Parts: sequence; C-alpha cells; structure tokens
Amino acid sequence: MVEASATIDFSERAREADQPRSPLVRFGADKPLRLDAKVDLSPFQIAYQTYGTLNAERSNAVLICHALTGDQHAANLHPVTGKAGWWESMVGPGRPIDTGRYFVISPNVVGACMGSTGPASINPATGHPWGLDFPVITIRDMVRAQAMLIDHLGIDTLFAVVGGSMGGMQVLQWAASYPERVFAALPLAAATRHSAQNIAFHEVGRQAVMADPEWRGGRYEIEGTNPRRGLAVARMGAHITYLSDAALHRKFGRRFQDRDNPTFSFDADFQVESYLRHQGISFVERFDANSYLYLTRAMDYFDLAADCDGILANAFKNTGTRFCVISFTSDWLFPTSESRAIVHALNAAGARVSFAEIETDKGHDAFLLDEPELLAIVRGFLEGAGKTRGLPAVVK
Amino acid sequence: MVEASATIDFSERAREADQPRSPLVRFGADKPLRLDAKVDLSPFQIAYQTYGTLNAERSNAVLICHALTGDQHAANLHPVTGKAGWWESMVGPGRPIDTGRYFVISPNVVGACMGSTGPASINPATGHPWGLDFPVITIRDMVRAQAMLIDHLGIDTLFAVVGGSMGGMQVLQWAASYPERVFAALPLAAATRHSAQNIAFHEVGRQAVMADPEWRGGRYEIEGTNPRRGLAVARMGAHITYLSDAALHRKFGRRFQDRDNPTFSFDADFQVESYLRHQGISFVERFDANSYLYLTRAMDYFDLAADCDGILANAFKNTGTRFCVISFTSDWLFPTSESRAIVHALNAAGARVSFAEIETDKGHDAFLLDEPELLAIVRGFLEGAGKTRGLPAVVK
Repeated sequence: MVEASATIDFSERAREADQPRSPLVRFGADKPLRLDAKVDLSPFQIAYQTYGTLNAERSNAVLICHALTGDQHAANLHPVTGKAGWWESMVGPGRPIDTGRYFVISPNVVGACMGSTGPASINPATGHPWGLDFPVITIRDMVRAQAMLIDHLGIDTLFAVVGGSMGGMQVLQWAASYPERVFAALPLAAATRHSAQNIAFHEVGRQAVMADPEWRGGRYEIEGTNPRRGLAVARMGAHITYLSDAALHRKFGRRFQDRDNPTFSFDADFQVESYLRHQGISFVERFDANSYLYLTRAMDYFDLAADCDGILANAFKNTGTRFCVISFTSDWLFPTSESRAIVHALNAAGARVSFAEIETDKGHDAFLLDEPELLAIVRGFLEGAGKTRGLPAVVK
Repeated sequence: MVEASATIDFSERAREADQPRSPLVRFGADKPLRLDAKVDLSPFQIAYQTYGTLNAERSNAVLICHALTGDQHAANLHPVTGKAGWWESMVGPGRPIDTGRYFVISPNVVGACMGSTGPASINPATGHPWGLDFPVITIRDMVRAQAMLIDHLGIDTLFAVVGGSMGGMQVLQWAASYPERVFAALPLAAATRHSAQNIAFHEVGRQAVMADPEWRGGRYEIEGTNPRRGLAVARMGAHITYLSDAALHRKFGRRFQDRDNPTFSFDADFQVESYLRHQGISFVERFDANSYLYLTRAMDYFDLAADCDGILANAFKNTGTRFCVISFTSDWLFPTSESRAIVHALNAAGARVSFAEIETDKGHDAFLLDEPELLAIVRGFLEGAGKTRGLPAVVK
C-alpha cells in the first residue's frame, strides 16, 4: 500500500501556499483578477522566480509557463523538496534559455499551491484555506494573471513565451490573447484543446482524490486530514500517460524488484510497480490535492478554437508573433497530430511558424528532459529571433 | 463523486460466489488444484455455462475463456445484472460460434467471483470469505482448473479454445500446456506477456482499491464494508485503456453533458466524464474488489516465454493445433505487435497459423463488439477447422 514518507513536513508545504520562499506580487482590491467564471478574484498574489537581468530596453524578457505539476522553481533548488529546478537542462547560464542573455520570469500559475493564489491559500473572508470555495479557473485566467505580473515588472513586450504541456497551452493562450506582447512563442508537447481521452484520464485522477475519505469535500486542511492516498493514486495513473510504452519497457521491462521470481503476493514485485509507488508518494509531499483538481479542470476546459467560433486560425489572426512548435514522436498524450493542428492554423493565419517533431521514445515528458535535439532547436530558434529583435549576445 | 446505485443487492452478488445460478462442479480433497504458487487449493469449485449439445464423438466442444471482468454468462441473461450475455454477438444459434453446431463450455475462472473458487468464496477453514488469504493464482492455474472441468465433462480433445484479452492468454496457455487436447486455438487481442505499461495500469487500479479504507486489508465482507469507491476508480482508469482515443473522440469529443457551457465546477461537465462514472458504478455492482486484485495479478505474471527459457517458440514446439490470431488496429493495450510476436513464434515452431489485423477504431474492446470482420473471420476459421475435424454441419 502507498504510504507517504515522513521526510517532508506537510505544514511547511502548506505555508508555502501563502508565504512562498520566492518573490511575490500582491494585487489588492483595486486590481482584481477577472475570471472566465465571471467572478473577480481579489485580493490575489503571484509568486515567481526570475533569473538573469532585464536589459535597458526591457526587450529580453522570457516568460516560462509551467506544466500541471510544475511551479516557479524552474532553475533553482526547490524550497520544499530540496531538489534541482525542473528545467535546469533548459534554463541557466549558457543553457538554451540563457540567463546570461535573457531575463527569465517563471511564475507559479493561479490555482497552484506554491505561492500564487489557489485553493490551498487562505481565503481572507474566512481565515481558512479556500478549498472548493475557490473559483474554477481557466488557462486564460492563468495568462491574464501573468499579464498583470508582467505589467507589474514594467515589461511591455515579452521576447519569448515558452512552456510544455499545460505550459504550452498558456503559450498558445498568450499568443491569442496578447499577440502584440509576444515576440516569439514556443509551445512544446502542447495542444489547442484537451481531447476526450485526456479529459477521461484527468477525471479518473480527480475521482481518486475525491474518493479518499480524508479529502473531506476539499476541507482537509481545516479538518487536519490529508487525502494523500487518493492523490498518490491520481499521480501514479497520470505518470503512466507521461511516459511511452517503449520507455517503460526500456526502463523496467518485466524485471522483478530485488527478486528472481514472483512472490505470489501484492507486494511491488515488478520494478515498474515500485517506481510508480515512489512517484505517487513523492508527489504528495509537494503538491496540494485541491490544486490538482483545479489545474486538471483548467486543462480540460481549454479549447482555443471554441473561443473563436470553432475556427482555430482566427485565434491567431494578424499575429506578428514568431512560433516554434515542437512535438515528440512517442508522446501519446499530446500527440504530434495536435501540434500539426496548431501549425495548420498558424499557416492559415499567415503566421511565421517553424515546426519540429523530435524522434524520441521518452513520451510526453521528453520536453522536461535532457533531449539534445530539443535543446538545440530551442537555442537556435531563440538566437534567430534575438537577432531579429536586435538583442545583443550578452546583456550589457 | 462516484456513489454506487442501489439497484443491485450486494449480498446477492456475494452469494453468487459460492452458490452460483449456473452449473457447478466441486472437486474434493482427492482432486486438489496444484497452483503455481506451490499450494494445493482444495476443495474448490468451477461454475460454468454450456450451450448446445455434445455430439456422440465428443468432438465438437468449444471452450470460451473470459476476460478480466467477464464470467461464464457469455450467451445468457446475467443473473445479477439482468443484462444480455457478454458475447451474444459471437455465441448462439447461427452465430460464428454456432450453438447449433458446437457444444460451448464457458467456465468462470478460478480467482473470479461468479461461482468458481476465489477470494470472495467461503474459506472452509474459517467459514469466512478467503480475502487475501486466498493464494495468488496464475493464468496457468486457471487453465489447469479448466482442464479438470473438461475431464469431468468427459471430453478428451477440445475442438476449439477461444478468448480475448485475458481470455486470449488462457487460449495461448491451453495450446502450450495441453497441445494434444486443443484442435484449434483463437487468441484474440492477446499477448504472450503483460507489458510494463500494462502492469503499470494494473498496479494503479490495485492501489486505488487498496487505498479505499473500506477495503480493510481485504476483509471488507467480514467487516461489513465495501470498497466500492476504490474499485470504481480502478474500473474507470482501466476502461480508458480498453477504448481508443479515436473512439472516445467519436463517441464524446468535448461535448458537454446536458449543458451548453462549462459549469465551472467539478460536476461531470463533459459527456465522457459522465460515461466513465457510470462505468465505475455499474462495475462495482457485479464485481468483487479482491477478485479484481487477483485477476490483474494473474495477468501481470503471465509470461509464456519465461516458462521456456525465454524462447517463445518453444512454448509451441511440435504443436498440431491450428491457430487463428486476431488483433485490432486501434488496440493500444494489446497492440498488433504483440499478436505478431505470437505469429512469429508459431511460425518458428512450424505451427499452422492464420493472422488477421482488423481495421477498427474501437480499441481493445473490439473483440467484444459486433465487428462484422471479426465475426466473419471466426466463423470462417471454425468452419474450415470443422471440415478438417470431420464435424457435420449440424449436430446429429
């Protein structure tokens, strides 16, 4: 059975929801976040990290949009887990998103649990965590909040917006909502809508969380419980979808765990079982169960064409943004066909677009990994766009 | 949240585990079932259905092997759900497995919960359901028990053994264990081993069951609880793997349930969510949670080549059985590559084998559905084999 380890203090993670160990901007009553659900979220806050230096022209800002279970800690030690940032292969000095050259902004999305306002944050009206009283948010809401952060930082136009998976959805939404503020856009392993199968997998994860009696209708923090088993099951199921069959086969095959033969029991006999259980346990240590519900829901609702009478190309009409669309051959969650649909719409809208399908067996998670071809393409695309934008090679 | 409906009496289903409404054979202390786990299961019973009439030569018997969540009620009304049999498109008068021509035997597998001995059955040593004291069983154990049933029915050689998915695993095991007793074998949507991804999906389902506090270490029947939420989550997740992305898209797309717009809530907004919740609820009404653990485990352990020093062809050495291997283009759980591996091994063993990959978007579940090409191929193959076997067109 999956049991959470005792290495991380859950109250420490909960505190992070309101008092994160990263920079923070608070928006008061004068600056509400207008949500798609027709509610104003106010007050609210955005936690973020920055790396590198903004140049005098304020023209070298790169916005990083994180995926479902990511956060602002893209290129620094994580304050809760103590692990390396989730995108250190991509972001840093001399990396493709070169912090010697670009001013990198990495916000935590609204609805998440690492310092931007979400269901784990204290609801000022009650003094308790929001829980399920938190309004349902959308990808567009996340992007609207990020635009307020960018305003706050005094940046008019982003040199680039980059992200994979749910991050890629935000990139596409940025290009659609604020085309004049995005010079270059890089949606990786993304789609303009969540498919029925994707929604189905998310729904199973949500039901796993909500089936845990410790979830308590979302009031677990008030009641002192923790739906860690339900959330671990949700994570285990989701994790399978992030990898390819081939990658699982290569990594684990049918190898037994520390044993030569089956134990004829329900222990984690196979290595892949032990690996999944570990994924479930370690996720629960750093993530809030209600946030998981809200962010999966935001992805399910995402449908860029639906906002434009069903014509995807209209989402990008008259865009001046340069696009670099990247997919991975073994990604069955956001398959290449979804990226092709993006490219076709961009072509129909007359946009500048380059497209690469990268050959790998690593599945959807490939965008997070040290994939040489991915790193080379992002580096090359940003260098080319930087030249057009007139960015110097090194920040003055 | 998933809540079970009140339409079916759970105690009725539990009673079915020991006193099924179908024929039954009990094996006493003189005939134990020798399990791969090196334990003797004794006493034990096999519940089964038969359709049609055994001919005088006893040469027209067809054994049907059911899948993970199937049972003996292939072609009759189900005594618990009141629904049609699970393979009425395939089995019946004038159907491809023609009950006017063949004597069809459809047993419930050992470890299941519809009358063959399994974890829901009463353990004679305690007077309570076995629960997790039931020994872990394998596909080979299921087949061994079926062979005892066939002996009991006075049948030496089966004209055909047919089954899909876990049923297909049993078909392959029959051909490997008792080649002289199988004239023709039809493994559908099958594999000779469970892949790492398959094991991973099963493990998530098991963890969902075991995470439900009502599971009580498998003692729920004794304690008067019911891990229905955990089992429903397991079923929902598994059900996605039985369908293709294309089929989900065709059936549901991103259509909303009875509404024109998102509700901005965690209700079943999308039709696919509502459908999955229904699948979870209706499964719980007819299936035992511990049986789900045991049968998924049996599938995980299945590895026919491992029993032959890693050389699959050796499993079928000198076989006289005729094989008809069938896969489905959109089946990503037991993809065509797995069926090809079976065919290659059979070719290497010099066996008679025909192979068909059927074009369909219906995914793994296609073997259960009214697929005209599937029905035509099974009909044709059995007619051809029947001619070789000297079966008359109609039973005398």
